[in-house]
Amino acid sequence: MIYELYYWPEIQGRGEFVRLALEAAGAQYRDVAREAKGLSAMMALMEGKSDQRPPFAPPFLKHGNLILAQTANILLYLGPRLNLAPDEEADRLWLHQLQLTIEDFVKEIHDVHHPIGSGLYYEEQQEEARRRAADFRDERLPKFLRYFDRLLESGDGGGFLTGQSLTYVDLSLFQIMAGLRYAFPKAIKRTAVDVDALVALHDLVAAQPPVSAYLQSPRRLPFNEAGIFRFYPELDS
Amino acid sequence: MIYELYYWPEIQGRGEFVRLALEAAGAQYRDVAREAKGLSAMMALMEGKSDQRPPFAPPFLKHGNLILAQTANILLYLGPRLNLAPDEEADRLWLHQLQLTIEDFVKEIHDVHHPIGSGLYYEEQQEEARRRAADFRDERLPKFLRYFDRLLESGDGGGFLTGQSLTYVDLSLFQIMAGLRYAFPKAIKRTAVDVDALVALHDLVAAQPPVSAYLQSPRRLPFNEAGIFRFYPELDS
Repeated sequence: MIYELYYWPEIQGRGEFVRLALEAAGAQYRDVAREAKGLSAMMALMEGKSDQRPPFAPPFLKHGNLILAQTANILLYLGPRLNLAPDEEADRLWLHQLQLTIEDFVKEIHDVHHPIGSGLYYEEQQEEARRRAADFRDERLPKFLRYFDRLLESGDGGGFLTGQSLTYVDLSLFQIMAGLRYAFPKAIKRTAVDVDALVALHDLVAAQPPVSAYLQSPRRLPFNEAGIFRFYPELDS
Repeated sequence: MIYELYYWPEIQGRGEFVRLALEAAGAQYRDVAREAKGLSAMMALMEGKSDQRPPFAPPFLKHGNLILAQTANILLYLGPRLNLAPDEEADRLWLHQLQLTIEDFVKEIHDVHHPIGSGLYYEEQQEEARRRAADFRDERLPKFLRYFDRLLESGDGGGFLTGQSLTYVDLSLFQIMAGLRYAFPKAIKRTAVDVDALVALHDLVAAQPPVSAYLQSPRRLPFNEAGIFRFYPELDS
């Protein structure tokens, strides 16, 4: 049964964490909102009847009759089906816990450029964003990166976070590092010296043949200033 | 096997969503950080060796050898064990999806008083908080509440979100309503006329005997200005 991903068509955003999993596994999927009339199909599902279990926001995944929202929840479902998660319940919960911590980080990264309101333009909250960015660069960015780096350092040397096998958390950490390098090139250069294992993980994931093929394909949207990771030089200095 | 909850001892915070589940189910549990020397036990676990799978932040739950963090992840684990979640995979994922949407809401509620940095005092970001609070009251608060109200309205009339049976999502929505009434009494009074079903759910949950007993016990900490739901009159006007 083919997977159907629904997400805003012009940004990587949160949908990219799902896309990376589908691509890395070589899964058959449709990126519905990027097809003709796909965006209105997505909106119709969101505004649909409540007995269809409407999502609060994209991304969501349709698989047969099932409609699932919340990035980490989608990955929890896809993980075992795409061989991107371990078998044991305790190991799966640990992986999910890490993904939820990544979600918290993603939310904080987004809120650097939107500290006052997600419905307002960046330009309407630029002053507050500068202040939040300073706190983010000094406190939050290193704290999150060092946490994941420490987990990698203490691993069994397989290179991936849980050992020898690629999981959706490795893919998400790749995306985090790629996005941070785009949005905060200076800050990440300063921090990256302390997080060698995370940098190595980024490179290892990017070198996986299906990931590498995806990154060079037109299916990989470029980073831009409408997504989560935005390059505003004034927030990086 | 007894459950051991680890969370900051002086606030309800995110730990309260777990506490409510344990209490509603009449589960045997320890609230470790509120016991003598419990806080240092909590810190030791967080700073522990990485091969013990250290949490990024509280709350976390210890159950036998398992240590689980992230509120929604803990509830995903506890749900079936405490009879607070349905049996089918699709239904459990739907419940988890709703809990993750509640988590997003909780994060936004917190950030109203901390829009610039979680490590700074409220007084250091009070001006930005006023601006964020206006956006929250006008846009985000009604959007989230109406989403859940609409789900309740379209339910089968059992009163709880998924029908006849209490789940951890009902408990979390109770806590959201109770907290919002404490933190934003004026704003919630204005909004509440539109969310009757949510108000009714709050009352139904509060009337469940184990919940009602818990709320009157000293185990229920009062809301205060160190938690997620803080009453700052200047943010509610």
